[in-house]
Amino acid sequence: MEVNLERIQRDIEAIAMFNATPNNGVTRFSYSLQDKQAKDYLMSEIKELALKTEIDAVGNIRARLEGNNKDGLVVMTGSHIDSVRNGGRFDGVLGVIGALEVIRVIKEQNIKTNNPIELVIFPEEEGSNFGSTLVGSKFMVGRYTVDDLKKLKNSDGKTAYQIIKEFGQDIDNYSGGGFKASEIKCMIELHIEQSVVLEEANLSIGIVEAIAGMKTLRIGFQGVANHAGATPMGLRQDPMVAAGEGIVLIEKLAKKKAYPSTVATVGRISCLPNVPNVIPGKVVFSVDVRDVKPEGIDIVVSELEKGIKLIAKTRGLDYEFEMVGQSDQVVLSADVVQAIEGSVKEKGYSYMRMNSGAVHDACMLADIVPVGMIFVPSINGRSHVPEEYTRYEDIKKGCDVLLGTIIKMAE
Amino acid sequence: MEVNLERIQRDIEAIAMFNATPNNGVTRFSYSLQDKQAKDYLMSEIKELALKTEIDAVGNIRARLEGNNKDGLVVMTGSHIDSVRNGGRFDGVLGVIGALEVIRVIKEQNIKTNNPIELVIFPEEEGSNFGSTLVGSKFMVGRYTVDDLKKLKNSDGKTAYQIIKEFGQDIDNYSGGGFKASEIKCMIELHIEQSVVLEEANLSIGIVEAIAGMKTLRIGFQGVANHAGATPMGLRQDPMVAAGEGIVLIEKLAKKKAYPSTVATVGRISCLPNVPNVIPGKVVFSVDVRDVKPEGIDIVVSELEKGIKLIAKTRGLDYEFEMVGQSDQVVLSADVVQAIEGSVKEKGYSYMRMNSGAVHDACMLADIVPVGMIFVPSINGRSHVPEEYTRYEDIKKGCDVLLGTIIKMAE
Repeated sequence: MEVNLERIQRDIEAIAMFNATPNNGVTRFSYSLQDKQAKDYLMSEIKELALKTEIDAVGNIRARLEGNNKDGLVVMTGSHIDSVRNGGRFDGVLGVIGALEVIRVIKEQNIKTNNPIELVIFPEEEGSNFGSTLVGSKFMVGRYTVDDLKKLKNSDGKTAYQIIKEFGQDIDNYSGGGFKASEIKCMIELHIEQSVVLEEANLSIGIVEAIAGMKTLRIGFQGVANHAGATPMGLRQDPMVAAGEGIVLIEKLAKKKAYPSTVATVGRISCLPNVPNVIPGKVVFSVDVRDVKPEGIDIVVSELEKGIKLIAKTRGLDYEFEMVGQSDQVVLSADVVQAIEGSVKEKGYSYMRMNSGAVHDACMLADIVPVGMIFVPSINGRSHVPEEYTRYEDIKKGCDVLLGTIIKMAE
Repeated sequence: MEVNLERIQRDIEAIAMFNATPNNGVTRFSYSLQDKQAKDYLMSEIKELALKTEIDAVGNIRARLEGNNKDGLVVMTGSHIDSVRNGGRFDGVLGVIGALEVIRVIKEQNIKTNNPIELVIFPEEEGSNFGSTLVGSKFMVGRYTVDDLKKLKNSDGKTAYQIIKEFGQDIDNYSGGGFKASEIKCMIELHIEQSVVLEEANLSIGIVEAIAGMKTLRIGFQGVANHAGATPMGLRQDPMVAAGEGIVLIEKLAKKKAYPSTVATVGRISCLPNVPNVIPGKVVFSVDVRDVKPEGIDIVVSELEKGIKLIAKTRGLDYEFEMVGQSDQVVLSADVVQAIEGSVKEKGYSYMRMNSGAVHDACMLADIVPVGMIFVPSINGRSHVPEEYTRYEDIKKGCDVLLGTIIKMAE
């Protein structure tokens, strides 16, 4: 038994058309027009399968194929369909379309599982709107409440609450939602790897054992804006040079002071007033630190705080060092890892067990239900960019493994 | 004989009201509504003095008080009234209002000079619209033609030609203009110092002997955008860390490799896609290098080009290193310096001869007519920021010196 690659490819390409930046990668923020169009497409596919569907206050979609035992624990599978700005077509979408195809095949083949199977689609995984990732899955498991959504704001100052309400979700009448961890048997997410580990090892399938934890920081230096021509070098309090030193230090700490698994990135920078002939008054930048070993993150963050303080002191600047986000490293379920491995071996696909540097919706459930993840290779390891690509032969293998694992878990 | 400080203060404060960013410094770009309003105010003052006024194709205003000898060489004085975004109220405006007051006093006191005296107001000194400074004075002396104005563009892609035409200037019927260097005796510009030299020396007047030359660069690093969590440190081509190294290097070159008079500034930076969880694909920044010694600029630029090339090579990045602007250092007229010095000594004000790190409209005329500049202290040396301030007692002294010098030069 295997999945139908033509349908999978058709669906992935259809979703990729709902895109705010054609010809420049995929931009499909949650709660945008393109998100609505993509969900309409998916809901019509779900309707053809006659699945029972529930949508909660933030827009988490759960579509259920009943099993023989109506009270059986749920085997859940899915991912997200939102993207970063100018991202790729596979990130998230693969896990949703893979799950949809798995349910299609199970229905077509008239396989009667004991447990119910649910397709889940989480909104706002990427944090593109509000700078906070995994909003849908956090809300599902109760880490975010409606009150939290009133605090999250997009760059126009609109709250998540307002935007979700305008999208048409009945956010005010949310009663606590239908998710109960005790009703879930497991959650399995198929995803692109977003790195080069599988490609370099020339393998088709990755079985994830652990997901890196993450801390995100916002660092700012405040100096004195002044005329770029008239202010001698010795009389400057220039936050841009301080930022340069900080950025170089961040790389050094991740490479030299922590572990091979530690990564640290400055992906965003802003400068005021940002004109060539004025020494900046303020420079702010983001830092994203991740590791499967929590000590790796702690080493970078604590050494960085000392370093930033010293740079500010030396240069007579004020500084801000603010933790804006955090997620712990996650160890996935050994039982689910074994089930996935069994399914891979049956198919005879090449594979390895591995860690994930990227965080995924499944992580949010891993504390309370058994979670597993299946990775397929990313060409040149590239993701979150227009060039993101995974070969369709690997996509078929990943979906086959998901199919085998879901059937195994649902009995 | 002295200027009337009340009138000067009234005029400076009136001009400061024509401002696109009230409560956040002064923003008055040339060819904006606020520019029009400020010019209407000035034209009404000029009309009261019954000066003969000419406005050229780009909006250079010349308002003439005739002397006894109608064919005498012109003693010119003035500055600009445009500002940077969120700048101060004194930069440029002081030189215009000082010149206006000088002509007022000369008329009131019924002083008959031999030479005609002209108030000049240059548009677009700061380069706020098109990223090119000194547009008005460059056009006056023929360094810019109408064709050049068709190439300069603002951030919306509109050309200087279009914007000036929409402002109401008869740019198409420009016949070559009225400016002839052979008809000018001298040009004297009163300006705030924009640095801390006078304040630290506790002096009221600076007599400028030389103005720093300048080169502006645009440096870009192109790497590979990728997922911030999933890409190991050793597999990155990260242009942000390269930019950090470049920015640190620029300060080091200006401080350690060149002269005490050399300054170098990174005032603008941009990053693509500029989101926290993506390793940037491209980072671009500006460099502004200035010195009264041309070798100081050359040392920084040539060492920097080597350094940027090495950083790019080491990190496997592409780079761009582009010269986007240049002006030579300017030595001012010894005769005018002497005339200013005589005027300061008559008044008994404290003073020094000095250099200017900032470039001014007067520089554009210095190759072809004798030019002088008078500086007054900037509090904490701050300029191009809302906090820009000069004490009115120093403003009065600066205007008094301008008055004495203009009368001396016009005989």
